[in-house]
Amino acid sequence: MTNEREPRGIFVVLDGVDGCGKSTQARLLCERLAERAAQAGRGAPVHLREPGSTRAGERIRELLLDPETELSARAETLLFAAARRQMLDERVRPALDAGCDVVCERLHASTFAYQAVAGELGEEAVLSVLATWAGDPRPELVILLDLPVDEAFARVERRAAADGRTTDRIEAKGRAFQEAVARGFRRFAELGSPDATPPFGPLGSRVVLVDALGTAEDVAARVHREVQRALR
Amino acid sequence: MTNEREPRGIFVVLDGVDGCGKSTQARLLCERLAERAAQAGRGAPVHLREPGSTRAGERIRELLLDPETELSARAETLLFAAARRQMLDERVRPALDAGCDVVCERLHASTFAYQAVAGELGEEAVLSVLATWAGDPRPELVILLDLPVDEAFARVERRAAADGRTTDRIEAKGRAFQEAVARGFRRFAELGSPDATPPFGPLGSRVVLVDALGTAEDVAARVHREVQRALR
Repeated sequence: MTNEREPRGIFVVLDGVDGCGKSTQARLLCERLAERAAQAGRGAPVHLREPGSTRAGERIRELLLDPETELSARAETLLFAAARRQMLDERVRPALDAGCDVVCERLHASTFAYQAVAGELGEEAVLSVLATWAGDPRPELVILLDLPVDEAFARVERRAAADGRTTDRIEAKGRAFQEAVARGFRRFAELGSPDATPPFGPLGSRVVLVDALGTAEDVAARVHREVQRALR
Repeated sequence: MTNEREPRGIFVVLDGVDGCGKSTQARLLCERLAERAAQAGRGAPVHLREPGSTRAGERIRELLLDPETELSARAETLLFAAARRQMLDERVRPALDAGCDVVCERLHASTFAYQAVAGELGEEAVLSVLATWAGDPRPELVILLDLPVDEAFARVERRAAADGRTTDRIEAKGRAFQEAVARGFRRFAELGSPDATPPFGPLGSRVVLVDALGTAEDVAARVHREVQRALR
């Protein structure tokens, strides 16, 4: 046995409402982590998104987004959990075992915000299925990008206009739904705050809220600071 | 308020190993229940099979059977649970509410036998997700068609030969797996026996083992006797 640091990567999740900047920040964080990995002679970070990032996950994603397929709120939640389980088994664990960092857009906090809080399935039922069925590997750090609902809405609309498309089914659920989702993310952060007792949340990860207002570079600096803190 | 019997149908599940006669017995039971429903002026029984019987369920079934799509044991279990939740919401509850009987091939006992016991995911984790996420509506009666593994094997092979095809992925898992599955069904019956304390099993249904040896008519008579008993 030596005291050397294990050649294991860090598993970081970026989560938050539509329009909060998850994709941009995940890309920027991967660039920063890639420098560190190269210096240490480790493989490049793996950038994942949920649901998806596996063949099964992409097929489940299609099913979730298909307006022709009837899905109850509980069936939808189980499909999200199935896609997550497959991604954790097929992509996350092998990457971490190979010493790579993993940065994933969305994970448990989204299920909690969309299904448990906004979808009204209840905190306990949702946390329990996630803990039992999708609790491992556990992210070291969950960063919730925090943005006022008005600003998130404006960004989503600008993006849709730039893509020449209308908002999709979930985006179109309206203001009250988006506010409930935002409330769900803040509630997840409360449950998972390092100040809580026990220090980590119900799913065992360090959870922090990061202000997502400002330029992409401003936010990236805040995200990086939290990752540095988690790596210490 | 009156003392009249509620115009609600009975929900019966037929379960057991491949080759035990579920489809034949489900069809014969539907015929018997159809006579009773017609006499009472109720709609015809609904015959379902799992996974499937909804648009989402059929797509999930394709995914589960596709040899090109990698699926871990836990992801597979969550997909079965998602298909079941959708079938319960979209087909079973509306049929029961409309006063129809429902006869379903496979339900929780299969998940227990294949995933918890043969697949080694553990009784507690599997029963807990089923109870919380797929526990309602609850079958009044679960009939496990009990057949020696040798006889079940021989029937599956005869059927495959008659269809001019080789056995499929699950059928091909071999003798030791099929024996573990059979053991899983018997264990589910023990947990759910009317003699157990509390009288009904962990998922709250009356569970009975029915001998599946003999002609289809012999077995149908045994199945019908159990249904009559549950209706009393």
